[in-house]
Amino acid sequence: MSDVARAAGVALGTVSNVLNHPDKVAPATLERVQGAIEQLGFVRNTNAQQLAAGRSRSIGLVVIDISNSLFVDIARGAQRYASELGMNVLMANSDNRADQQRADLDFFDGARVGGILLAPMEDAGEDVARIRTHGRPTVVLNFDTGRNDCCQVLVDNEEVGYLAARHLIDNGRTRLAFVGGRDYLQPVALRRRGVRRAVAEEGGRVTLQEVPTENLDPPGGLRAAEGLVEDVRRGSLDGVIAVTDLLAMAIIQVFGARGVEVPRDVAVMGCDHNSAAWGGMIPLTSVQMKGLDMGREGLRLLLAEIDEDPAEHRHVTTMLRPELVVRESTVGRERATPLRD
Amino acid sequence: MSDVARAAGVALGTVSNVLNHPDKVAPATLERVQGAIEQLGFVRNTNAQQLAAGRSRSIGLVVIDISNSLFVDIARGAQRYASELGMNVLMANSDNRADQQRADLDFFDGARVGGILLAPMEDAGEDVARIRTHGRPTVVLNFDTGRNDCCQVLVDNEEVGYLAARHLIDNGRTRLAFVGGRDYLQPVALRRRGVRRAVAEEGGRVTLQEVPTENLDPPGGLRAAEGLVEDVRRGSLDGVIAVTDLLAMAIIQVFGARGVEVPRDVAVMGCDHNSAAWGGMIPLTSVQMKGLDMGREGLRLLLAEIDEDPAEHRHVTTMLRPELVVRESTVGRERATPLRD
Repeated sequence: MSDVARAAGVALGTVSNVLNHPDKVAPATLERVQGAIEQLGFVRNTNAQQLAAGRSRSIGLVVIDISNSLFVDIARGAQRYASELGMNVLMANSDNRADQQRADLDFFDGARVGGILLAPMEDAGEDVARIRTHGRPTVVLNFDTGRNDCCQVLVDNEEVGYLAARHLIDNGRTRLAFVGGRDYLQPVALRRRGVRRAVAEEGGRVTLQEVPTENLDPPGGLRAAEGLVEDVRRGSLDGVIAVTDLLAMAIIQVFGARGVEVPRDVAVMGCDHNSAAWGGMIPLTSVQMKGLDMGREGLRLLLAEIDEDPAEHRHVTTMLRPELVVRESTVGRERATPLRD
Repeated sequence: MSDVARAAGVALGTVSNVLNHPDKVAPATLERVQGAIEQLGFVRNTNAQQLAAGRSRSIGLVVIDISNSLFVDIARGAQRYASELGMNVLMANSDNRADQQRADLDFFDGARVGGILLAPMEDAGEDVARIRTHGRPTVVLNFDTGRNDCCQVLVDNEEVGYLAARHLIDNGRTRLAFVGGRDYLQPVALRRRGVRRAVAEEGGRVTLQEVPTENLDPPGGLRAAEGLVEDVRRGSLDGVIAVTDLLAMAIIQVFGARGVEVPRDVAVMGCDHNSAAWGGMIPLTSVQMKGLDMGREGLRLLLAEIDEDPAEHRHVTTMLRPELVVRESTVGRERATPLRD
């Protein structure tokens, strides 16, 4: 790094800024330092910055459930960015188990990664604090600790629910159901709140029934759908928002088997754009959780924290906006959006 | 481990057999040793077996591309089995890059995992040999090295192509196209061979055109489909087998935009059951690659190798049979199979 500083005729701190906070560097200086970096093959070949600071070029990523494509997207987003920097992301799947999550964190701690990206299943504040004392910062993804004790990247899950209900209402649906339980999970509670807000905006013109489920996977949807079939037939239900795509897929399957036509009789949508649910009978409308962006932003925050003096670091939370993806299950095949990556 | 042997009144080797080859142990002995294990909280709390042998309870898994759900399934299969044994699987994505793959292998080597599961993009024999000299065996998944230098788990990719073509022919399609290039990739060459075999069995009654593509992702499908539209209109094409689901999805999208109806005018299917391609306009028929089984079987072979005297170990290859999954894109919605996990 000092070679680069010398070649560019700048202070060491300026080179560090170019690498970590390019927005803080004057354009002419930025160009000069980047030229020197390129000339010396600096970042690409040696990762001298990492080595000099005794840091690893590897980052650990611990996620709840890799069968949910959100977490695969997070990994891909983090890894793409890591590759650009000549770094490496390793991944562990805690598989919805707290003991597994702790074991994964300990593995990465023992393997001396530079820092950790953690999409936790529940509050992991103690583990994060413990690992930080070993000089390894952790950025938390997709979970709001509610404290200001780490950097976080979140998706606005209330907006997810709001966008879902708004989409159905805007397409003429007025008798809605929100299907899903386990409100101790943040996304469920927040999505529910967003759905309620959109319905409330309609001032009584739109009804909402809330249907609890024991779990968020297909079996929960199968049981819930049996009751919903009758509601559709009675005319008291024309739009279903399932809190997960897997629930929505199961509901569509039961509707199909019972002769309820989607979306003609009832529109059905999910809320998490989980590719595992895309193989159902009818392509599913859902809300894109921006996993690629979450992974990239998480790594950006992590590297900034690794690079800063711990005494000076201030934790930040980045809130990402979700995005509606419209497919056949709510608007019919003709009006569905072609798939994008 | 010796505590368990003492408590159960058996030899140390018997405890090892209970843990690693329970089928070789007499039922009464098995029960006694398992009782002792439970009583001592042995596997769950201490992994004494691993520690005693200087082995880690963690296994590294390196895959080509986690955006392909085959590799997510492999990870899930390996992890489920690892969890049953109180072990842990860590995952790295080489993202189709040989340098990344080497870096991932070196990371796991440095992190002292017990062994490695590797789904390589190309022959990684040198890396496998190097890591084995450090006492860490590697089992290769989804790639046939063609030598007997490691244990392997493969899917019969020729059978994948055969099942695909057989399905179209059995559903009355007689003018087929096989779309896909890059035959230096084993699955492409093998699937092509299987398609040709099924067509050859029909003795001239079924025609086959082979349409090369530069890549196996959607852009390749978009270009190939433009030419295929004319063939469908001329009546010289009624069934398409794309070598990947992503190609198939892109082809269906072009067909839809150009007014060619799937499956009425032409049946379209993929070959790898990649969930990333399930969000297209029409649910896609494909062939299930059995990733869950591949991960589980890979870990089973790896643990057997870890446990054996290297001088006595004999490498084996397990060949898994693929399975056809029929959806709307080849048979219409009415006859499609509901989604299974």
